[in-house]
Amino acid sequence: MSKEQVFPYEECPEGFEGPIWRFSGNPVIKRHPTKKASRVFNSSVIQYGDGFIGIFRGDGNDDIPHLYVGCSKDGVNFDISDKRIIFEDEKGNILPETGYQYDPRLIPLEDKYYIVWCDDFCGPAISIAYTTDFKKFIKFDYPFLPCNRNGVLFPRKINGHYYMLSRPSDLGHTPFGDIFISESDDLIHWGRHKLVARSGYEWWCALKIGPGPTPIEIEDGWLLLTHGVNRTCNGYVYSIGGMILDKNDPSVVKYRCKDYLLTPEEDYETVGFVSNVIFPTSTIVDKESGRIAIYYGCADTYTGLAFSTIDRLVKFIKENAR
Amino acid sequence: MSKEQVFPYEECPEGFEGPIWRFSGNPVIKRHPTKKASRVFNSSVIQYGDGFIGIFRGDGNDDIPHLYVGCSKDGVNFDISDKRIIFEDEKGNILPETGYQYDPRLIPLEDKYYIVWCDDFCGPAISIAYTTDFKKFIKFDYPFLPCNRNGVLFPRKINGHYYMLSRPSDLGHTPFGDIFISESDDLIHWGRHKLVARSGYEWWCALKIGPGPTPIEIEDGWLLLTHGVNRTCNGYVYSIGGMILDKNDPSVVKYRCKDYLLTPEEDYETVGFVSNVIFPTSTIVDKESGRIAIYYGCADTYTGLAFSTIDRLVKFIKENAR
Amino acid sequence: MSKEQVFPYEECPEGFEGPIWRFSGNPVIKRHPTKKASRVFNSSVIQYGDGFIGIFRGDGNDDIPHLYVGCSKDGVNFDISDKRIIFEDEKGNILPETGYQYDPRLIPLEDKYYIVWCDDFCGPAISIAYTTDFKKFIKFDYPFLPCNRNGVLFPRKINGHYYMLSRPSDLGHTPFGDIFISESDDLIHWGRHKLVARSGYEWWCALKIGPGPTPIEIEDGWLLLTHGVNRTCNGYVYSIGGMILDKNDPSVVKYRCKDYLLTPEEDYETVGFVSNVIFPTSTIVDKESGRIAIYYGCADTYTGLAFSTIDRLVKFIKENAR
Amino acid sequence: MSKEQVFPYEECPEGFEGPIWRFSGNPVIKRHPTKKASRVFNSSVIQYGDGFIGIFRGDGNDDIPHLYVGCSKDGVNFDISDKRIIFEDEKGNILPETGYQYDPRLIPLEDKYYIVWCDDFCGPAISIAYTTDFKKFIKFDYPFLPCNRNGVLFPRKINGHYYMLSRPSDLGHTPFGDIFISESDDLIHWGRHKLVARSGYEWWCALKIGPGPTPIEIEDGWLLLTHGVNRTCNGYVYSIGGMILDKNDPSVVKYRCKDYLLTPEEDYETVGFVSNVIFPTSTIVDKESGRIAIYYGCADTYTGLAFSTIDRLVKFIKENAR
Amino acid sequence: MSKEQVFPYEECPEGFEGPIWRFSGNPVIKRHPTKKASRVFNSSVIQYGDGFIGIFRGDGNDDIPHLYVGCSKDGVNFDISDKRIIFEDEKGNILPETGYQYDPRLIPLEDKYYIVWCDDFCGPAISIAYTTDFKKFIKFDYPFLPCNRNGVLFPRKINGHYYMLSRPSDLGHTPFGDIFISESDDLIHWGRHKLVARSGYEWWCALKIGPGPTPIEIEDGWLLLTHGVNRTCNGYVYSIGGMILDKNDPSVVKYRCKDYLLTPEEDYETVGFVSNVIFPTSTIVDKESGRIAIYYGCADTYTGLAFSTIDRLVKFIKENAR
Amino acid sequence: MSKEQVFPYEECPEGFEGPIWRFSGNPVIKRHPTKKASRVFNSSVIQYGDGFIGIFRGDGNDDIPHLYVGCSKDGVNFDISDKRIIFEDEKGNILPETGYQYDPRLIPLEDKYYIVWCDDFCGPAISIAYTTDFKKFIKFDYPFLPCNRNGVLFPRKINGHYYMLSRPSDLGHTPFGDIFISESDDLIHWGRHKLVARSGYEWWCALKIGPGPTPIEIEDGWLLLTHGVNRTCNGYVYSIGGMILDKNDPSVVKYRCKDYLLTPEEDYETVGFVSNVIFPTSTIVDKESGRIAIYYGCADTYTGLAFSTIDRLVKFIKENAR
Repeated sequence: MSKEQVFPYEECPEGFEGPIWRFSGNPVIKRHPTKKASRVFNSSVIQYGDGFIGIFRGDGNDDIPHLYVGCSKDGVNFDISDKRIIFEDEKGNILPETGYQYDPRLIPLEDKYYIVWCDDFCGPAISIAYTTDFKKFIKFDYPFLPCNRNGVLFPRKINGHYYMLSRPSDLGHTPFGDIFISESDDLIHWGRHKLVARSGYEWWCALKIGPGPTPIEIEDGWLLLTHGVNRTCNGYVYSIGGMILDKNDPSVVKYRCKDYLLTPEEDYETVGFVSNVIFPTSTIVDKESGRIAIYYGCADTYTGLAFSTIDRLVKFIKENAR
Repeated sequence: MSKEQVFPYEECPEGFEGPIWRFSGNPVIKRHPTKKASRVFNSSVIQYGDGFIGIFRGDGNDDIPHLYVGCSKDGVNFDISDKRIIFEDEKGNILPETGYQYDPRLIPLEDKYYIVWCDDFCGPAISIAYTTDFKKFIKFDYPFLPCNRNGVLFPRKINGHYYMLSRPSDLGHTPFGDIFISESDDLIHWGRHKLVARSGYEWWCALKIGPGPTPIEIEDGWLLLTHGVNRTCNGYVYSIGGMILDKNDPSVVKYRCKDYLLTPEEDYETVGFVSNVIFPTSTIVDKESGRIAIYYGCADTYTGLAFSTIDRLVKFIKENAR
Repeated sequence: MSKEQVFPYEECPEGFEGPIWRFSGNPVIKRHPTKKASRVFNSSVIQYGDGFIGIFRGDGNDDIPHLYVGCSKDGVNFDISDKRIIFEDEKGNILPETGYQYDPRLIPLEDKYYIVWCDDFCGPAISIAYTTDFKKFIKFDYPFLPCNRNGVLFPRKINGHYYMLSRPSDLGHTPFGDIFISESDDLIHWGRHKLVARSGYEWWCALKIGPGPTPIEIEDGWLLLTHGVNRTCNGYVYSIGGMILDKNDPSVVKYRCKDYLLTPEEDYETVGFVSNVIFPTSTIVDKESGRIAIYYGCADTYTGLAFSTIDRLVKFIKENAR
Repeated sequence: MSKEQVFPYEECPEGFEGPIWRFSGNPVIKRHPTKKASRVFNSSVIQYGDGFIGIFRGDGNDDIPHLYVGCSKDGVNFDISDKRIIFEDEKGNILPETGYQYDPRLIPLEDKYYIVWCDDFCGPAISIAYTTDFKKFIKFDYPFLPCNRNGVLFPRKINGHYYMLSRPSDLGHTPFGDIFISESDDLIHWGRHKLVARSGYEWWCALKIGPGPTPIEIEDGWLLLTHGVNRTCNGYVYSIGGMILDKNDPSVVKYRCKDYLLTPEEDYETVGFVSNVIFPTSTIVDKESGRIAIYYGCADTYTGLAFSTIDRLVKFIKENAR
Repeated sequence: MSKEQVFPYEECPEGFEGPIWRFSGNPVIKRHPTKKASRVFNSSVIQYGDGFIGIFRGDGNDDIPHLYVGCSKDGVNFDISDKRIIFEDEKGNILPETGYQYDPRLIPLEDKYYIVWCDDFCGPAISIAYTTDFKKFIKFDYPFLPCNRNGVLFPRKINGHYYMLSRPSDLGHTPFGDIFISESDDLIHWGRHKLVARSGYEWWCALKIGPGPTPIEIEDGWLLLTHGVNRTCNGYVYSIGGMILDKNDPSVVKYRCKDYLLTPEEDYETVGFVSNVIFPTSTIVDKESGRIAIYYGCADTYTGLAFSTIDRLVKFIKENAR
Repeated sequence: MSKEQVFPYEECPEGFEGPIWRFSGNPVIKRHPTKKASRVFNSSVIQYGDGFIGIFRGDGNDDIPHLYVGCSKDGVNFDISDKRIIFEDEKGNILPETGYQYDPRLIPLEDKYYIVWCDDFCGPAISIAYTTDFKKFIKFDYPFLPCNRNGVLFPRKINGHYYMLSRPSDLGHTPFGDIFISESDDLIHWGRHKLVARSGYEWWCALKIGPGPTPIEIEDGWLLLTHGVNRTCNGYVYSIGGMILDKNDPSVVKYRCKDYLLTPEEDYETVGFVSNVIFPTSTIVDKESGRIAIYYGCADTYTGLAFSTIDRLVKFIKENAR
C-alpha cells in the first residue's frame, strides 16, 4: 500500500501480465463490519474532501439490504454508519422506506452527488437520488418502469443531454441481461433508449451483461467496466469485463473486450453467500498518473479492491476486442 | 344488428343480466380475412368519417404478426388492406421493418391518431406512432425499455400532461403483470411512473392484469377495461375486467371490479390458436346514448364484438368493487 | 332417460362395448346455472328423501370456487342454491370463510352426511364436515397437513375403524399423485397411513392417480373409481379409471384396471375452462339392479352424467387388470 | 371424392388459393376405429396391389401407442387390424415388445417396404424395419443413439448411399428440434451426419422443425413436407411446412418456404387429445397428373386427408422461399 | 472447552455481541468419521447416563443416508456405530429397511426416547420410533401422509395431548415450507393440525421455515430454534432462526425473531456437499446455568457445535421480534 | 512422489482403506497454467516416448474451452502449448474452427492416437480425430447426431469391430444421462447402439452416469471408471465410479460398484468455477505392477492426480457390486 499519497494503490506485481491486479490486503471490508450489516459489498466510493466517502450496501441480519453512508481516510479502512439512509422527495417530505435498496452507484455530476440503485417499486427498479452533503438525500421519481437492477449515470452531459446505462431484468434471478442507454434533459423523464450491448458471444457473459461503475472519460471515448454472467450447472458466475464507448454517441461500442478482465479466483470471491461473484461498482481515477482503484463486491459477502491504469486497461481492451 | 344507425349495436337480450353481451353475428372477423393474414384479432377500431377505420393485427402464414389498416361502413364488416403499415421516423426516413408488431391500440388525441403497440426492440417493447391520414405513419423512439407488451394512451392531456398505461413483461410467456401509468410532455420522454393495479386478489386475474382499450371519460372518472389472466394446468385463461380511475389523478383506482365482466365461453373464444382468450383492445362509445361497442380478440384467432352501456358497466363495477 | 323410475339412468346403447356410456342429455349442468356460479362441475350427489341432494362446486365470476347445496327431483335437473355453505365448528361458532373450497365428496356414513373437500389451509388441504339436514354444517379440524386435494371417506367402518382415501399434492399444478389410505377412530385424529396405488405403469395415469367417488361395496371388495392424469405438450388429460380393493383391508388393491374406463372425447369434455378433463366425484347405485349413475366434472366447466352397472364395471376391471 | 379412379383425390375448391386443401370427408379415421385403438393418427399409407396398405399408430385404452397394419380399397376407408405388429430380428428370432411405438413412416425402397418409427430404446429412438409381405417384419438395430423421434428414409439411393432425415430430441416434450441428414451403405451403420435445417426464423417453426413423409423426387430436387412447432402460452401448435432439397446433395436446402402450407383450423385439428396439431406422415403421388394425397394426424386423435399437386406445392414453396 | 464439567460449553468470546457463538474446535465431526459414513451431520444428541448419546445421520459412500447410534463422554468427541439402526414394529417383527432415513430428532418424552426423522414412504415422510435402551427401536406407523421432511415432538404433553411440529414438503427440492403443529393422544393418530409460522417476511427465511430441535420449555413459553431458507442465484442458503411459542397453546407464536441467529460464515459451513447450510437439530440445556449447546449440521458435510444461554436467546428474540 | 521411475505414483498412505488415494502434490495443474488458458482440467494424458503427452481442455479468458497439446517428463509437471489444435479433414483441408471443444479423451489404437471430445455441431456432439505425431490432426465426420458430450473409444478392436462408449445429452445442463455403446468398422459409420448402464439406483449417480477414461483391459473384462452425478438444492455433485464390462461383449456390465470410488472432498475439488466436481478422463497403467495413475478434472478449474492399483480397484468394485 503506497503511503506517499492518499490515493489507494499498489503497484502491479512483478511479472503479472493481466489487466487488473488485486489488493494484497483484500478483502477490505470483511464480514460483520457493523452491527446492522453482516455483509457489505457492491458499494461505491468516491474521493471527498481530503479522504473518501461512499454509499454502501449492507445486508442486515435478516438478509435484507439497505444503504448506508461510510467514510475513510485512506480508501481502504472504512467507517460505515449504522443508520440507514433516509430519503426525501423533491418537496422535502420524508419518504417511507421501501422494502429494500441495493447495489448503489455514486456519481459526481455537475454540482451534486447522484446515487443510482435498485429499489423496490413493485419489483426491482432503478432509483435516482442526489445529495450535496451526504446528510440530506433527495429522491426523484423512478426513471424507468420495473424490472431493472443496474443503472449508472454518465458523469457529465453529452451533447447537452444526460445519459444512463442500465440492464432491464425480471422478477426472479433473470436469465437474460443486456446494456441499454437512455437519454434525459431533467433526470426525470427518460427516452430515446438504445441497445448498447447484448449478452452472449463469449461464454463468460453468455447469460447477462450489465454496466458497472460510472464510465471513465478517456481521450477517445468512455471506458466502461461491466459485469458479465456465465451459467454453470452449479449456478451463476459473475466476472468483470470492459468496453470503450464512443465519446459523442455513447450508445456506440467502439471496442468490446472478448475476454473478462477479472474472474472469481480468490477464496473471498469463490466462497461466500453467493459464491463465484465479483461485481464492480465504482472506480477512483488519478487523472495525472492514470491509476485506477476498483471497488468490487466479492461473493455477495465482502468488498474487494483491485488496481490498474487507464493505459493498461485501454490497451488490453483494444488488443482483445472482438 | 340495428340498421337504423351507423353505430354497431344490438340491444341486450331479454333476461340477460351480465354487464356485457356478445354480438349475435360473432365472430365479425373470421379466419383468413385477407391473403396475407390468416388470423386477425387484438385490433382497434374508431369512428372515422361516416364509417370506421382500424389498425389490425394480422398473423401471417408464418405466424408472425404485422399491422394493417382496415375500414368498414358499419363497424361489423371490414375491408382490411393486404399491405403492412410502413413507418417513417420524425425526419421522414422510411424505417426498416422490425421483427413483429402486435396488439395495437388506436387513440384519437388532439389533432392526430396515435397507435400504440408491441414492437420488436431486442425483446417486446411498447412503440408509439401517429398518423393524420392513415397513409403516412410517423413512429417515435421507443417510450420505455423492453420488456412491455400492452400500452395505451389516455385520449386527452390531464393537468397538462400526457399519460400512458402499460404492463411491463419479460421475454417469454410472462407469469406476472401489473398496470403502471407514466407521464410525458412530449410523448418522447417518459417518467413519473406509478403503479396503478397489481394482479392477484381474485383468481381470474391472479397471474396478470393489463390495460385494454383507451380509457373512457365518464362523469366521475375514467372507465378502464382490462384483461386479466388465470393459469390452469392446461394454460392461461384471459378474461375482461373493469375499473374506474380518478379523473384528475388516473393513477388512483377508485373502483376495481372483483368479478370479470366477460370470460371465454363461446366456441370461437374457447377454441383457436390460443384457446380460452378474450382480449379487449378498443371501444366505440355513443356519447348521447351511452352505448358501447367493444372489439376484442378471441382465442388469438378471431375478432369479436360485444356491447354494453356506460351506465350498466359503471353500475356493475361499483356494485362489485372489492 | 328412463321415466319409469326416479333413478337417473339410460340403457346401454346397442352395440356399445365399453364399460361406461354417457347420458344422451349431457351436460346435465351447463354454464351459468346460477347467478353466483358460472361453472358447476366436480360435485357430488346422493339420493335423499324421494329425490336427490348434492354439494356443488361453483366457480364464481372471479373464478374462485365455493360450495353450494343443490337438489333435484330426477337426478338430472338441479336447483342449486345461490348461498354459499357456511360452516360452524364443533361448538357451534360460525367459522370465517376460507379462501376457497372445491371438489366435494358427499358420503352418507352412520347417521350423518359427511362432506370431504379441498379447502384453503395455508395451501390446499382436505377438510371434513358433516350435516344432518343440509342446513347446518359442522366442520372438523383438518384431518391431514397440507398439501392434499382429493379425499373421500369409506361409507362404513371397516373392522371398527373409519378410513379415508386421499392424494397428497403440492402448492402448484402438482406433477405427481398417488392414492393413500388413512385410519381413524374419531374422524379427528388420523394415522396408520398406507400407500394404496401409485401413478404410472400406463400412460393415462402416468402423472397422477387419485380417488374419485366414495368406494362402492361389492360382493368381494370395494369398487373404486379413480381419476388418472397423462401430461401432453398441451397440458394435462384427466381420465376415469377403476380398481377393486380388498373388503377387509382396503389398502390392498386386488384388481387395477390398466385401461381407463372413460376418457375425454365429447365436446363438453375436450373444450372448456380446462380442456380434456373428466373427473368423477360421486355415484348413485341401485342395489337391486346394480345400475350405477356417475356424476363427473367435464373440462372444469360442466357436470356430466354417465352410466354403467356393477357387474359390467367389475367384469371390465377384472378382465383388464394389470 | 372422385369415383373415376382408385387414387384418393378431390379437385381444389373453386377460388381456393392456398397450397393444400382438405378432404371434404375429413377426418377419414375417427375415434375408436378398432377395439384396441381409441385414437389412430400419425400413420402412413402407400399404394399396394390394386388398393392401399398402411402402418398405423393406434393409441390403446391405456394411452400407449403401438403399430398396426391396415388396408383400404379407396384410400379413404380403412380396415385396421386389431393385432399389434410383431418384429423379428435379422436372424428370424421374435423380438420382445418394447414399451411403445409411434409415428411410423412407410417407404418403398428397392425391393422392400421400410418402416421407420419412434421406439423405446432407453428413451425415444428411431427404429427401422422392413417387410416384403406386411406379415413378417424384420427390425434392424437402432440406427442412432437416443433421443430422436422423427426419422424418414429417402426412397432411393443417392450417389450410391442411403440417406435418412431425422430430428434429434430429448426425454420430455423437447423444446428444440432441427432436421439432420445421415448416410449409410447398409442401413445399419450411419455417419457423415449433417445439419439440413434449423428451427426458427419464422414463428410457426420457432420451436422445432422435423421431417414429415418420405421426400418426393421432383425434376430439380426433393420435395420435403415438414412439421413445424410454435409455442404459445397454451401449448404447442404443429403446422405443415415445405422445402426443396438438392437432388444430388440432399443436405442442401434449395428452397425453404417461410410460410406454413397448412395450420390447424378445423374442429378435428384444433380440438382433441393434443389440440392444435397437424402432422403429415405420408403422401401418395400420381406421377402422371402430379396429384398428391397427404395423410396427416389431427390433434393426436384423428387421421386427416388433404390434397395438392406437385406443381402447386413447388410453385408455392419457391415463391415464398426465405 | 471447559474441563470443569461434563457439559460441553465454551464461554462467549469477549466482545462478541451476537446471540450464538461457535465452538472453537468446530467441526466436531469431520469427514469420514466411520467406514460406512463419509459425512455425518443433521444429527441429534442428548445427555445419557454420565455422558451423551445421539442418533446420527450418516451418508454412505453411495450418498444415501441412514441412521446410526453414537455416544460420547464429553459431547464433543463421538464414537459412532458402523451398524445401521434396525427397526421393529409394535409386535416385535423386524421391519425391512426403507430406501433412506435422515435428519433425526431425539426427544426424551415420559419414560422413552423418541426418534422423529424423514423416511422413505413413497416420498419423504415423517417417521416416529422409540427406544428405551438404544438397542431395540420400535417404529410406529407413519404419523402423516407424505411429503414432509422435518418433524419434532414436544418434550412433554401439553394439556394432556402430545404435539408435533413439522414442515410439509414436496418430492423435489421444495420451494416452499411452513411450520405446522399437530395433536395426538396415542402418537399414532394425529389431528387438529394448525399453522404455526409461514415462510417469508424477512429474506433469510423467504423460501422456507422449518422446526429445528425439540422446543425448550422456558418460563413464559417454548423456545423454538428453526431453520430458514433464502434462495440465491447459486442455490439455497440455510440459517438458524428463533421464536417463542405460547406455553399452553404452542400453535401461537408470541415472538418471532426477524433476524437469523446464525448464518453460514465459517469455511466448514460455506463449503461442502451442499454449501451454505447450517441446520440445527438438537440442543442440550443446563437448567441451572441456562447454558445451551446447539448441535447443527454444516454444509451437509460436518457436525458443528455452538453455544448460548437461554436468557441471551430469549432477550435477542424478544428485542428483535417482528 | 516416487523418484525411482518415470511412472507418476505415490504409495497408498498408511492406514488408508479407500479404493483411490490422492496425490499429495495436488492439484498438478493450477489456475493460469498458460496465458491462453485460465483453467485446465478434464484432460487426457498418455505415456509417449520416454515421457508423457496429453490433450488438454483449456478454458480461455472468455470461458470458452479449446484443445491444446501438452507434454511432461514426469507426468506431474506439464508444459502446455499456447496454440489451439488445428484440425484437417481427411483430404488435408484445414477445417474452420468450431465454437468450442472440450473434455478430450486420448486413446492409442492400432498405429494412431485418437482423440474423442465434445464439439460444437449445432449442439454438443462427439467428435473424433487422430494424429500420429501430435502435430497434424485429422478430424472425421461426426460419429453421432447431437446431443452427446462424453465419448471414449476402446483401445483395441473387439471381435473385429471398433467400439465407443458415450452419454447422449441435451442442449442445456442435461438432467439425465446413461452410458451407451456403439460399433463401427471404419470409425465413420456407427451403429448397433446398445445401452450399457442407466443412471440411478444409488444417489451419487442418481441423475447421470457417463464413461470416463478409455477402458482398461484386465484379466476378466474391461475396467471402466465413470462419472456419476447427484443433484442437491445447490447444484450437481460429480463423483468417480467404477464398473467391469464383459471382455467379449462390452455392452454387458459384469460388476457395477454401488459406492463411488472418490467424491469431492478437498478444497480444490469442492471450490472452483463449478464446485463439487471430480471428473476422470484418463489413466496410465503400469502393466507389471498394476499401478494406476488417474488424471481427473477438479471443480472445472484444476487438474488432479490420484492413484490406485488394478487389483485394489477390481477387488473394491467386486466386493461392493450391486
